[in-house]
Amino acid sequence: MTDQTNLAPDALGPTLCIGEILAEIVATTTGEGFLDPVPMVGPYPSGAPAIFIDQAGRIGGSAAMVGSVGNDDFGRANIARLERDGVDVSGIRTDPVLPTGTAFVRYRHDGARDFVFNMWTSAAGALGWTDQVQAVCARAGHLHVMGTLLGHQSIWEITERAATMIKARGGTISLDPNMRKELRGDGETGRRFAQMVGMADLLLPSGDELYLAADLPVDAGEEAALVRLFQLGVKEVAIKRGVQGSTCALPDGTRTHAPAFDVTEIDPTGAGDCFGGAYVACRRLGMLPEQALTYANAAGARNVTFRGPMEGAGTRAELDQFISETKRLT
Amino acid sequence: MTDQTNLAPDALGPTLCIGEILAEIVATTTGEGFLDPVPMVGPYPSGAPAIFIDQAGRIGGSAAMVGSVGNDDFGRANIARLERDGVDVSGIRTDPVLPTGTAFVRYRHDGARDFVFNMWTSAAGALGWTDQVQAVCARAGHLHVMGTLLGHQSIWEITERAATMIKARGGTISLDPNMRKELRGDGETGRRFAQMVGMADLLLPSGDELYLAADLPVDAGEEAALVRLFQLGVKEVAIKRGVQGSTCALPDGTRTHAPAFDVTEIDPTGAGDCFGGAYVACRRLGMLPEQALTYANAAGARNVTFRGPMEGAGTRAELDQFISETKRLT
Repeated sequence: MTDQTNLAPDALGPTLCIGEILAEIVATTTGEGFLDPVPMVGPYPSGAPAIFIDQAGRIGGSAAMVGSVGNDDFGRANIARLERDGVDVSGIRTDPVLPTGTAFVRYRHDGARDFVFNMWTSAAGALGWTDQVQAVCARAGHLHVMGTLLGHQSIWEITERAATMIKARGGTISLDPNMRKELRGDGETGRRFAQMVGMADLLLPSGDELYLAADLPVDAGEEAALVRLFQLGVKEVAIKRGVQGSTCALPDGTRTHAPAFDVTEIDPTGAGDCFGGAYVACRRLGMLPEQALTYANAAGARNVTFRGPMEGAGTRAELDQFISETKRLT
Repeated sequence: MTDQTNLAPDALGPTLCIGEILAEIVATTTGEGFLDPVPMVGPYPSGAPAIFIDQAGRIGGSAAMVGSVGNDDFGRANIARLERDGVDVSGIRTDPVLPTGTAFVRYRHDGARDFVFNMWTSAAGALGWTDQVQAVCARAGHLHVMGTLLGHQSIWEITERAATMIKARGGTISLDPNMRKELRGDGETGRRFAQMVGMADLLLPSGDELYLAADLPVDAGEEAALVRLFQLGVKEVAIKRGVQGSTCALPDGTRTHAPAFDVTEIDPTGAGDCFGGAYVACRRLGMLPEQALTYANAAGARNVTFRGPMEGAGTRAELDQFISETKRLT
């Protein structure tokens, strides 16, 4: 069964991602917060959905983005980057008043991060259903949903409508189930999460997110969680394990593993999103799980060797070179 | 007449300034805009009204600020700086949702500047009359008004109310008439500008602003413009002439000049605001025009030798040392 593609083929239309587009400014010294002047570098194009779609486009998949930026250099830099990497940017609006969202990030000595955000109070928060969004959804072949965004009302409304449209035309859905555990249990965000798990063809969990998606306790065991998800209609699960590599699990019991690559980390931001963008693109382009996992592992690993959240997103040729030159972790 | 103080004495209560408080991030390479990652340093406490009041407090004048910051490190850094320099920060509110305003600045090769702002769409734009603002206005002895802010409706409402309260208790008003010429002629902003010129005891113009304030053509001549302003009720004009120093003009015809200081400019931002903050504080502390001009020239000059818009604001001791060590331009 591993040669079966569970995602709509690339030819059906672009993979669509909806959400925040940010300019990221990275402090170049470690320490706590932003109370005193520190050296920084930026702006780097950023935002988890933008990183995902940039990698999907850069590796050669059809890709499109729905988002909102300000009428400023930070917005122009983001749009230019996505266009360069082959992403359809017709669904990105430019807000006439609000600035492009910003994220200042500084790494502490222990590896934790301090942020100063202007996210939903920036142009990123001023997203709605427009003719341009309608048009790109009408030709999309796949929707990738960020679990982090399920609590945001206006993005949810676009996401739900896009999911329904894309499913109706034979498209598929992937979900990065990254969300805070405390939001899972009850309330509107938890309900949306359950709805998207139910609609998803592919899940891309890391850590405990597998159990969160399966709505099982973390000691239930990985196989039990996978069985539960397949019962709910999920057709494929790509488990991100960091330095332990990644695994593709299919309903027929096939488990394909690919080892991680041995790299020196410069900036961990964006690794999971690059993994996802590459994996979805490769599977939609018809690659078997093992090859897709290898490209996805390489995309995540290569990206952390560059400062900036999507500076290391690789073309297929760049990733081929990376794979041939980089030692696997066993 | 030069020994007469035209401003309410320091003992009446603090000099109040109302307006934006920002975090400034400065690109450390020259060039155009922010389309690609560049090295930067920040956050620096900033915002013209904040720079003015910081220098006023740091030199030893009573000082207070009304403004709004976000609940983030950028806001905390600004409040800490103002508090350190003796400014009453009780009139600064912390917005629970909006971030602290930001200004990214990059110098072009020709000395012009490119900006990316989040100003009035940040916490800085969410200013209103509160019990805290009422309380600080009720004890203030002087109001300094930024001409740049006269077009901002909610800040104007606070400014007008504060000006009336402070005048009523024997306080005085200074105006930095910095505003775009095209706003002077007609409309609401021009009307507000004329009203503030009429209420002002002290003007602090640079360049053509003297003529803008006098509502005369720029070829009318400096003396004619001064006479007109004195007829309107202005009691003192401190003219900022950059490398040509500064001049205090009084209605009795006294003209006092003080030469500029010879410094190597690192970052010109904030020079005029430091001049103003020092001048107002010194005059309110009872200094004669010549001494106030000398401190004001020194404050502006010292500030441009530091990167960051208010990093070079000086204490009286720091400015005494600067004055003793620095060559005058003749």
